[in-house]
Amino acid sequence: MAETAGKQECFVGIDLGGTKILAGVFSPKLKCLGKTKMSTKAQRGPEAVIQRIAKCLRDAVDECDLELKNVKGVGIGAPGAVDPETGNVIFAPNLGWHDIPLKKELEKLLDLPVFVENDGNICALGVYEAELKSKPSHMAGVFIGTGIGGGLILNGQLHSGHNRTAGEIGHMVLEVNGPKCSCGNRGCFEALASRLAIFHRIQSGVKDGQKTILTDILRDDLTDLRSGDLRKAVRRKDKFVERIIEQAAEHIGIAVANLINLINPDVIVLGGGVINALEDEMMPIIIKKAKEHALSGTSKGIEIIASQLGDNAGIVGGAVLARTRTK
Amino acid sequence: MAETAGKQECFVGIDLGGTKILAGVFSPKLKCLGKTKMSTKAQRGPEAVIQRIAKCLRDAVDECDLELKNVKGVGIGAPGAVDPETGNVIFAPNLGWHDIPLKKELEKLLDLPVFVENDGNICALGVYEAELKSKPSHMAGVFIGTGIGGGLILNGQLHSGHNRTAGEIGHMVLEVNGPKCSCGNRGCFEALASRLAIFHRIQSGVKDGQKTILTDILRDDLTDLRSGDLRKAVRRKDKFVERIIEQAAEHIGIAVANLINLINPDVIVLGGGVINALEDEMMPIIIKKAKEHALSGTSKGIEIIASQLGDNAGIVGGAVLARTRTK
Repeated sequence: MAETAGKQECFVGIDLGGTKILAGVFSPKLKCLGKTKMSTKAQRGPEAVIQRIAKCLRDAVDECDLELKNVKGVGIGAPGAVDPETGNVIFAPNLGWHDIPLKKELEKLLDLPVFVENDGNICALGVYEAELKSKPSHMAGVFIGTGIGGGLILNGQLHSGHNRTAGEIGHMVLEVNGPKCSCGNRGCFEALASRLAIFHRIQSGVKDGQKTILTDILRDDLTDLRSGDLRKAVRRKDKFVERIIEQAAEHIGIAVANLINLINPDVIVLGGGVINALEDEMMPIIIKKAKEHALSGTSKGIEIIASQLGDNAGIVGGAVLARTRTK
Repeated sequence: MAETAGKQECFVGIDLGGTKILAGVFSPKLKCLGKTKMSTKAQRGPEAVIQRIAKCLRDAVDECDLELKNVKGVGIGAPGAVDPETGNVIFAPNLGWHDIPLKKELEKLLDLPVFVENDGNICALGVYEAELKSKPSHMAGVFIGTGIGGGLILNGQLHSGHNRTAGEIGHMVLEVNGPKCSCGNRGCFEALASRLAIFHRIQSGVKDGQKTILTDILRDDLTDLRSGDLRKAVRRKDKFVERIIEQAAEHIGIAVANLINLINPDVIVLGGGVINALEDEMMPIIIKKAKEHALSGTSKGIEIIASQLGDNAGIVGGAVLARTRTK
């Protein structure tokens, strides 16, 4: 690769979330050179958030002793429906955004090429390029965090579909008439197995008088419950929390079986905060349930694994997107 | 195209079902030159069934005043898990088949190249090639008959997946803890909306004292209930049957929404006996429910249509398979 001003060329990946912004600087071979984190402050409005993204990126680049002119491209994962052609965020409920020209505004601030994708797609891309050495033909990524996102790699390429919104596995209905989902439907996968779904189940159990050490760790209303708290409770043998985590893992297993029956990918990768925190507890249940539920003969040889990229999946994926698009 | 012995070259498509075998002879441009039908007689065992397939094919070819030497290739859709490489039927519950070398045995009998695929995949291929003039990039086919089959065309190609079993949409779980499915799981799409699921619901209603004109048309135990009987009942304003058909259509709509959220194809085509018989009644409900359940913005411009190929989807698809593989 050519070098600019004697310094390495690099790509920046940005993971824009409802609560935090992560920026990572990567070499063309996807080595992480440095990263920064900043709160999103969505309540200040889109303009302020876009300025914070630019600041987070500048800080990350400076942290690596590089300059903006070393950056060949920027890839961003946004939490919602995105038009990757225009780089507009069509709808991002966690940010309260409707039709925000993220690419255009950020390019104005940075004078760099910016590429925008859905965050689930970006994470899938990151896992595929940076983590899967075998480069399978077909991969499905399922990311269990506050919500549930996903992305499909088919024939080695990110599959976007007609409206470029494919991979919304979180809103696959698994239980008609199940619990209400933020999207307005009932029984979506996200309403059954996301961190928020787990939280609601714990909260309603506590209201009904269930005992849990979570009320010792946190306050009685369980505000600020994080995936790490769930891990603590399970590791301390909190039966109530254990059962709820088990139920969530069973639902994840059924969703994975649906992917096996429908798409039959070579590899299914699970990631996101809930899986990162509870991999040892949840993965055996997920795999068992998925194999039980997949049609006889359809799951043979299909790998179901947990991503080890943790929080980095989004920023690596952003760098991959930028690298691909600036080629 | 070259011609053999002054006669047109042709391809034969065969739809092997649990109750009947259909064979169709097609020109290279997929014009149907003739077809024949025969009962399967699965109870006589695989060898007898394979001989019946060969007979059905010979009769169809003779019907068109052609000879076996005019046939360039044969494509068969089998109801179950198939290995398209070896042409073995791995498992076909409706036929009671396990590991049957269909391709090998039929090639021995006919001395013609034979290609085998899953019947849902074959129907999707037939609809895509013979019916969709616009040749969309991505299509999902959903076939509602005795069971529910499906097939995915992605980037213009049949998507087979890791174990070549992709497209098993009938076993996508839509209702955890829902009614028992023939596959052993609960709440599969097939257990909620297939002709058999509809039949079970009607039967149990009748047992509970529900009145329906179906018991006039058929016997009290409703043996031999066909999709055409359901149409008759609905057209005669049988409220009980109307409500059950409506529920099935709602479940189909939710399954279609899952496909939109997950794969976001350009076109979703519905077919099979139930849709053929009740298109006018079911399609408006399916489309409404699908658009309601798909995430905001994801269903824009996606066509949801009923196939007009009827029973011919499988035989056309078989001819398409044979044409593709003998190229």
